[in-house]
Amino acid sequence: MNLYPEPIERLIAKLSKLPSIGRKSAERLALKLVSTDKSEVEELRQALLDIKTKIKHCNICGNLTEHEICNICSDNSRNKSLICVVEDTPNLIAIEKSREYRGLYHVLDGLISPINDISADEINLDSLIERVENQDIEEVILAISPTVEGEMTTLFIGELLKNKNAKITRIASGIPVGGSIEYFDTQTLFKALEDRREI
Amino acid sequence: MNLYPEPIERLIAKLSKLPSIGRKSAERLALKLVSTDKSEVEELRQALLDIKTKIKHCNICGNLTEHEICNICSDNSRNKSLICVVEDTPNLIAIEKSREYRGLYHVLDGLISPINDISADEINLDSLIERVENQDIEEVILAISPTVEGEMTTLFIGELLKNKNAKITRIASGIPVGGSIEYFDTQTLFKALEDRREI
Repeated sequence: MNLYPEPIERLIAKLSKLPSIGRKSAERLALKLVSTDKSEVEELRQALLDIKTKIKHCNICGNLTEHEICNICSDNSRNKSLICVVEDTPNLIAIEKSREYRGLYHVLDGLISPINDISADEINLDSLIERVENQDIEEVILAISPTVEGEMTTLFIGELLKNKNAKITRIASGIPVGGSIEYFDTQTLFKALEDRREI
Repeated sequence: MNLYPEPIERLIAKLSKLPSIGRKSAERLALKLVSTDKSEVEELRQALLDIKTKIKHCNICGNLTEHEICNICSDNSRNKSLICVVEDTPNLIAIEKSREYRGLYHVLDGLISPINDISADEINLDSLIERVENQDIEEVILAISPTVEGEMTTLFIGELLKNKNAKITRIASGIPVGGSIEYFDTQTLFKALEDRREI
């Protein structure tokens, strides 16, 4: 027997499917929404519609955008000879927030993953090769998380772009700022030593 | 400068207003929704519409329902001489889940709270008095959380129903099952002793 009226149960079920929302949170959210102003809920519904109708992938880099070309690709103040390859838009945003990087991006929209049956064909690679071949690219920075799938993807792209004109680099692995050496695994320490730099 | 396209920023803003969803979770949810099937998002939108159009308060007890009278009030197997007074539907559901109680409910939809400027007029009390006066009610159980506002509301309702025919009781305060006496405050221990029962 459902404890809640069917429309509320249905909303709970839908909300539970979202990442990091369990049954309990979904119940709380649904009941909050029941008592929220109708106009407020309508605005949420409109926002949900808009992301489905107005958001697309940038024709150049694959980033999410409202336009044909994203804000970053169309920003003439950025260094267009530099491409930073990222897994997805949240990773791109994370790098943007650091305010360290002023080049362009390339969003893969996934990683190569034999376990999840995602091959190299299914991520946004063709247009990366095309950009590197046809534009004046000095350096491609692979900024992909050093997980198993990330590592595989990084190595694959490294091979793929090996004989092009651009320099291919990857972000350093090591101890996070504020981290204690003693708490990290040997792989991380090994990488931190390997990627050491002069001061 | 907004890091996300405007429709995504707008959705993040809307999601952030929901309980226990911070900016970071809202970003993750919004980006997940961007990559979710359009039909799936449409179902979520429909569910949001339905809770606003189909859900109302039960004419008898104030519980949320799709009908004029809620499932509990219209269930003839329940003991109709017993009313359990609760703050809101989540509290009602919590009691239902315990499967201990087979009477009816009365949902206040709020608590008396001078701090939040909520007076007794603004909670669902008139119809409770009417039910107690006009129906054959043996007992009214006040099952309201023993917080400051809950306490105030419990005492207020106790006064209000004092000279009616029904017996007025309140749920016990004490040590939660599994809790260690040493970790609870003196108020709780005092209540636990006061509400002691024969075994």
